[in-house]
Amino acid sequence: MNSSIMQRIGEIHALDIQATEEAVSRLDNLTKPPGSLGKLEELAARLAGITGKALPSFPKRAVVVMAGDHGVCEEGISAFPAEVTQQMVLNFLNGGAAVNVLSRQAKADVLCVDIGVNGDIDHPELLKRKIRYGTANMAAGPAMSREEAEAAILAGAGVVSEAISKGITLFVTGEMGIGNTTASSAVMSALTGITPLESVGRGTGLNDERLRHKAVIVQRAIELNKPDAEDPVDVLAKVGGLELAGLVGVILQAAASRCPVVIDGFISTAAALAAIRIAPEAREYMIASHVSEEQGHALLLREIGLVPMLDLGMRLGEGTGGVLALHLIDAACRIPAEMATFESAGISGADEGLQ
Amino acid sequence: MNSSIMQRIGEIHALDIQATEEAVSRLDNLTKPPGSLGKLEELAARLAGITGKALPSFPKRAVVVMAGDHGVCEEGISAFPAEVTQQMVLNFLNGGAAVNVLSRQAKADVLCVDIGVNGDIDHPELLKRKIRYGTANMAAGPAMSREEAEAAILAGAGVVSEAISKGITLFVTGEMGIGNTTASSAVMSALTGITPLESVGRGTGLNDERLRHKAVIVQRAIELNKPDAEDPVDVLAKVGGLELAGLVGVILQAAASRCPVVIDGFISTAAALAAIRIAPEAREYMIASHVSEEQGHALLLREIGLVPMLDLGMRLGEGTGGVLALHLIDAACRIPAEMATFESAGISGADEGLQ
Repeated sequence: MNSSIMQRIGEIHALDIQATEEAVSRLDNLTKPPGSLGKLEELAARLAGITGKALPSFPKRAVVVMAGDHGVCEEGISAFPAEVTQQMVLNFLNGGAAVNVLSRQAKADVLCVDIGVNGDIDHPELLKRKIRYGTANMAAGPAMSREEAEAAILAGAGVVSEAISKGITLFVTGEMGIGNTTASSAVMSALTGITPLESVGRGTGLNDERLRHKAVIVQRAIELNKPDAEDPVDVLAKVGGLELAGLVGVILQAAASRCPVVIDGFISTAAALAAIRIAPEAREYMIASHVSEEQGHALLLREIGLVPMLDLGMRLGEGTGGVLALHLIDAACRIPAEMATFESAGISGADEGLQ
Repeated sequence: MNSSIMQRIGEIHALDIQATEEAVSRLDNLTKPPGSLGKLEELAARLAGITGKALPSFPKRAVVVMAGDHGVCEEGISAFPAEVTQQMVLNFLNGGAAVNVLSRQAKADVLCVDIGVNGDIDHPELLKRKIRYGTANMAAGPAMSREEAEAAILAGAGVVSEAISKGITLFVTGEMGIGNTTASSAVMSALTGITPLESVGRGTGLNDERLRHKAVIVQRAIELNKPDAEDPVDVLAKVGGLELAGLVGVILQAAASRCPVVIDGFISTAAALAAIRIAPEAREYMIASHVSEEQGHALLLREIGLVPMLDLGMRLGEGTGGVLALHLIDAACRIPAEMATFESAGISGADEGLQ
């Protein structure tokens, strides 16, 4: 079944070695000690490998905000009521949310997708890709069917394909869905075997008692539904969420299209984990933006081998951390394109004393 | 003597409590869980306290790149020859260095100051504030006289005052000077008692043997000159550098003028330490941008109680990390100014389950 998804999305290629080597060679001739711009240089080299261009740039980029509701909210796992999902979608569409503010600053489009909100929203900017009106309560049965999970993945992939046809070449993952840290913890625990006590976090800010309750609910959902750890689509269907599945499609389609995809916080990273389990080669196209305050996030990033660039104690989601990282990506692109070389600037090199 | 410097520079006031409270109150009403933007919210509140405005912004900002040479280069403590200081100053003036590239991206001016380069540079953009042609070799005697250190501090303060008169309201510290990580380690060790083995680092990339030699030289300079740990100007004069003293003036004058000052890497943080020892209230005006790869930097930041925002493995100096942090400062300003409130967006609040 996973292979049928990848047949629809397309093959994910290895990074372009020649472009990477050209970028590294250029970076080493710039007027600075070799490697002294640290992660910016690593990023510049990887962006070259991803795009196949020694000097890439990303003038048109978008954050894809996937919105969906969660039946598990019945269990009292969030401090905010489920209707906030819809209210926040309208806030995104009206430009008033944090992700809108930070996207304006970073000159990124906000593509707001209704992949599974439990209500009808009408707005000319909304991308309507609803698979169903929210998931079912995973503490009482599967969150959705396998067919629905696959449809959500392909819907996410479709959003990326359409955006690429309009000139977008870099994507940021974003999401909204009251209850979705619970689903993300369940996906993380089901795919890695890490216990719910370690994978759950405070989400929007739960107190200690409600945090313990959340771990119990995640444990119950996994015991009841018995998701198959070897089958990421099964995990997404039984204990995941529509926006999680949608983001898996966003990530896979971006990678298959040689576009970098910036991974936001905990929920986006749970989607990244599922995407890697479907297509391991997708990891090379992922750029981890930040490590959030959500307990399981740092653990999850380590588990899948992604190193974040920012550590700002953020825990909002929406794509906010991902969009902030765009400034660092722009910096990584500008350095090799704009800096002088030792030769062009007439600058003396080092003696034998370098490492 | 320190008090005479502060008489020239002006009093540094406590942060504005009312503006801070207004900012916090606004942040808590925005459409996000309270505190969920982490350090961006702390930064927004502090910028309000610094400026006295609940909604500050910094459309005109500058990185002040102080350039000076170091007599201690005779001891072979850098892998790059001393003439690179002059060559890089020309690179800054011609717009080809990393700090130029990142400043163009962040819309910051680059103010390049010759405070003590060992040669004559002629360029219409260069701010000529030369105190002397490089320091003397601190491993053989004091780097400069007390009067010269004071003149360098006041020259740095003067650069800031002039920039403020042209509308600049935020400053980033930057520097260039082959040998200046050695002087910075000496200032750090002299002011804190931390041993040279802990305060020295690889600078532009020294190998192990040269790194040990560098620690020996710092130790010798301190033993020979006996700088008074209670007298930061004495330390700057005996084992510091002209650009270090200049940056102390930049920091103190920015603080006295209610302007935030973004601290770049190891050398800038050594200057920040000296500034705090002269006027402890200056610390509240400092924003630590990043923690560099230079060994002593993380230790020095902890010593003076500054928490950096970026950890990108950078070790270039020039102000590059500081300028990158401007995007985060802009984000912190935009959030309270542009986001919708719960009330304006019609969004439901949390139940009793929050921490």
